Amino acid sequence: MRQKTAAIIVIGNEILTGKSADQNASFLIKELYALGVALRYVVIIPDEVDEIAKAVRESAAKYDYVFTSGGVGPTHDDLTIPSIARAFNREVVRHPELVALLQGFFGDKMDEPRLRLADAPQDSRLVYGKDLTWPVLATENVYILPGVPEYFRRKFAAISEQFRGEPFYVCAIYTLEEELDIAERLDALAAQHTDVEIGSYPVFSRDDYRVKVTIEAKEVAAVERARDALLAQLKADKLVKTEANYE
Amino acid sequence: MRQKTAAIIVIGNEILTGKSADQNASFLIKELYALGVALRYVVIIPDEVDEIAKAVRESAAKYDYVFTSGGVGPTHDDLTIPSIARAFNREVVRHPELVALLQGFFGDKMDEPRLRLADAPQDSRLVYGKDLTWPVLATENVYILPGVPEYFRRKFAAISEQFRGEPFYVCAIYTLEEELDIAERLDALAAQHTDVEIGSYPVFSRDDYRVKVTIEAKEVAAVERARDALLAQLKADKLVKTEANYE
Repeated sequence: MRQKTAAIIVIGNEILTGKSADQNASFLIKELYALGVALRYVVIIPDEVDEIAKAVRESAAKYDYVFTSGGVGPTHDDLTIPSIARAFNREVVRHPELVALLQGFFGDKMDEPRLRLADAPQDSRLVYGKDLTWPVLATENVYILPGVPEYFRRKFAAISEQFRGEPFYVCAIYTLEEELDIAERLDALAAQHTDVEIGSYPVFSRDDYRVKVTIEAKEVAAVERARDALLAQLKADKLVKTEANYE
Repeated sequence: MRQKTAAIIVIGNEILTGKSADQNASFLIKELYALGVALRYVVIIPDEVDEIAKAVRESAAKYDYVFTSGGVGPTHDDLTIPSIARAFNREVVRHPELVALLQGFFGDKMDEPRLRLADAPQDSRLVYGKDLTWPVLATENVYILPGVPEYFRRKFAAISEQFRGEPFYVCAIYTLEEELDIAERLDALAAQHTDVEIGSYPVFSRDDYRVKVTIEAKEVAAVERARDALLAQLKADKLVKTEANYE
C-alpha cells in the first residue's frame, strides 16, 4: 500500500508578522506522524486570494490530504473559502446544511455576517467525526480548519482516525563519534539501504552524544536491517545508546 | 521606498516528521518583523533536491531575500548546496575562501568530508558580519544558514543589520464586542483605509476581551487615521484598551 501524503497550509498575516506564534502546524505535524501519514509540505502564507489559491491548487494535486488553517470567519481578512473556490474553479455558494446548523445555533441573532459562515466552495461536503456537533468543511481532498488553536485541535481530533495508515517505525542511534568522521559510512549505508530513510543530526552544545542517526520505514524488518548494518560500522566504544519506537 | 520582502525555506525531514520542532523559522519571523522586512512565505520541505530547488528558484525570483535553514553538512541528507546550484543552473564548486577557512580550522584533520563543507554553488559569495569568524554563504539573494538552532541564530544575528528597513508601526484595539457584530464595520474600514493592514483576531476562551483588531503600516500617520476611524465606530462602553508599538 502506497503511503498517504499530506500538506499543511497555514493562512495568516498574524503568523508571518510574529503577532501570533504558529500552534496549528506544529500540532498537526505530530498528529500526522502518529497517524502514519507522510507530511511533505508545510507553508505559511498571507491573507491573499492569489497566494492561497496557488498553494491549495498545487498541494491538492500533489498530495493526498491538504489541511488549511485559518482565514475562515466573517471579516475582510478571512479569504480561505473564496481562495479554495478559485483553486478549483468553483463558485462560492451558501451551503444549505451549514445554514441549517447556523440557524439552530444563532436562532434570532442570525444576520448576514453570521450567514456568511455558511459560505463554501460549490460541491463541498461536511465531514462529521466523533464527538463533533460542528462538522469539518472539505472541498475535494482539502480539509478546511479554523485558525483558533483550540478549535483547530478539537476539529482535527474529531476526524483524525479516518487518516490513519500504517505507522512509521523509527530507531535512533546515538554516538560520540563526530558526524564528519562517520559521514562516509552513512553515505554508504544510505546507498545500500534505499528502503529506509536515514537522518543524521549532529549536536554541538552537549557532551553525552555527538550525533543522533535515525532510521525510519513502514516496515520494522527494513529498519532493523539498516540498524544492524550501521551498528557493525560504528565504533562500539563510542556508542551511547539505541532507541526505537516499536520495542 | 518599496518595502523589502522575504521568504524562509526550512529544509529537513526531521521537522516534517516532528522529530525536531522548528526553532529557526519561528526565530526568524520575529527578527524580520523587528527589522521591518515583510516576510511573505515560510515553507518546510523534505531533504530532496527537486523540492528544494523548486522552492529556492520560485522564492528567489519573487522575494528580495531568501533564507534557507538546514541541509548543510557532510552527509547524504545534506542537499541544500546542490539544490541551490540547480535552482540557479550552476555547478557546485569548491569555494577557495571557504577551503582556506576550513584548513585554518581543521589543520591536520582535513579530509574529504571536511573539504565538502567548502562546496558552494558557482559564484556564491561570503557575507561577513560583526563578531563573525565564520561567514554566511550567499548565492544571489539566497542566504544559506545551518539547521542547528544555535548556529542559525548566531549567524543571522551577525549579518542581520544589513536587512534593516523602515519599521512596522502597529496598534491593537481590544473590544468586548463580538467579531460577528463588528465584521461589517471592519469591512468598511478596510475598504476605506487601503494604506494599512487590518487584522481581526477573535478569542473564545477568555473574558477580558473578545476581539483584537490590529492596524499596521510603515507610516504612523496612516495607522492613526485608521485607528481613529475605527474607535469612532466601536462601542465606547465595550472598548477594553488600545496598544501601539510606537508610543
